[in-house]
Amino acid sequence: MKKKPLILITNDDGVHAQGIRELTELMMKLGEVIVVAPDSARSGSACAITPVQPVRLEMLSRSEGLSVWSCSGTPVDCVKLALEKVVPYEPDLLVSGINHGDNASISLHYSGTIGTVLEACMKGIPAIGYSLRTREQECDFSPYRKIITQIAQSVLADGLPQDVCLNVNFPVTDRLQGVSVCRMARGSWQQEWRQTEREGEYTLTGFFTNLEPEASDTDYWALDHNMAAITPLQLDMTHYPSLNRKFTTDL
Amino acid sequence: MKKKPLILITNDDGVHAQGIRELTELMMKLGEVIVVAPDSARSGSACAITPVQPVRLEMLSRSEGLSVWSCSGTPVDCVKLALEKVVPYEPDLLVSGINHGDNASISLHYSGTIGTVLEACMKGIPAIGYSLRTREQECDFSPYRKIITQIAQSVLADGLPQDVCLNVNFPVTDRLQGVSVCRMARGSWQQEWRQTEREGEYTLTGFFTNLEPEASDTDYWALDHNMAAITPLQLDMTHYPSLNRKFTTDL
Repeated sequence: MKKKPLILITNDDGVHAQGIRELTELMMKLGEVIVVAPDSARSGSACAITPVQPVRLEMLSRSEGLSVWSCSGTPVDCVKLALEKVVPYEPDLLVSGINHGDNASISLHYSGTIGTVLEACMKGIPAIGYSLRTREQECDFSPYRKIITQIAQSVLADGLPQDVCLNVNFPVTDRLQGVSVCRMARGSWQQEWRQTEREGEYTLTGFFTNLEPEASDTDYWALDHNMAAITPLQLDMTHYPSLNRKFTTDL
Repeated sequence: MKKKPLILITNDDGVHAQGIRELTELMMKLGEVIVVAPDSARSGSACAITPVQPVRLEMLSRSEGLSVWSCSGTPVDCVKLALEKVVPYEPDLLVSGINHGDNASISLHYSGTIGTVLEACMKGIPAIGYSLRTREQECDFSPYRKIITQIAQSVLADGLPQDVCLNVNFPVTDRLQGVSVCRMARGSWQQEWRQTEREGEYTLTGFFTNLEPEASDTDYWALDHNMAAITPLQLDMTHYPSLNRKFTTDL
């Protein structure tokens, strides 16, 4: 009998977030599940790691087909620790999320959800990040259960190209209008700081502008049209057309 | 008379690091300089931002052609704050570093130095990250002064393509053997955790492997051959060949 797939789950909203509980429930229908997630919310962590300072790893529970671990480090630390110190063998899939808040366009660069997906990808493990365009802490994930499962099944069955992972974003809707496999939009965050009552002290805020609202092949367009956006991401950030640039240097 | 260029400087090793002092000295010969950097070392910060918690910004000094600010947030917070709350007008260039430690291959994903460069790039500002392959806190930057200046001059004169920035890495050498404009190598970090004396507690370590040591067109190859590596990076992480993938979904 073929062994059940091993699925590693993490997020950046913390091990007790609603999104990761939803994802765990769904993935348990597909395989053995190990959850290793931050002990508290770590939004905006990107690919950050914890140098120098020790990181704590603690098992919270273990039952048939599921173990849950909490980690004091960043989301990427969680993946690194899970792969080296927790899993009995290499997972068939990493899923991250479901993030409370979308990670479309340039926002993915700041995202701990996407950080974990890139980390798994660097380690050769097929990886999917799921995010929902909401800032609510409690929300209805039921409209997305079927498609979350189907994308995971597709990746379990067919894998992903080397050094490629998936960034999946959902709009808030009762009824998805379709699925778009699409590129990330060009975007811009502006007016990002609000001064507190103390001089020289600010908190991060801001609003996002899609810089190409007419383009129908972007993640942002899909979300704006109530479609799920599946964006394949690559680890290689090289801008190849610039490799022929000459720099005047005399050493 | 043409106005002198305005150059914004930051890093992830903190405002008092040797590398940023070197960079400041060099850039003051090219234009007006504003330094906004973390108040302490923030290595491994990637593109992390600080949500919710307030961030403090403080002027440390101001003199002819130079002002220096310290920020309690991440390296990317520093750039966001500098651009919105410090600079009198849009800078002509952002330079970051000189980082103590290389940011070649996949290590760039974890790098706060590169995080700041990507952030400036998102804001439309030509940006260069400089890193030196050393972990020493004090080191001899003199062999790199000329080329650092020349690359900055080239970008000030000719700019960079939209949504493209530069990741520049130097080997430790008395005499650079040349300059390579090159792609990032495929790489892998392994054996990343050392257990402390406390059960369930680990510190990050690890060693890096260049997965394509024979390829002569990579940043890692250049460094290994005592050459400076200039890698153009793009913000768009979309893997375009995967856009034609079909996902079996019935909504």
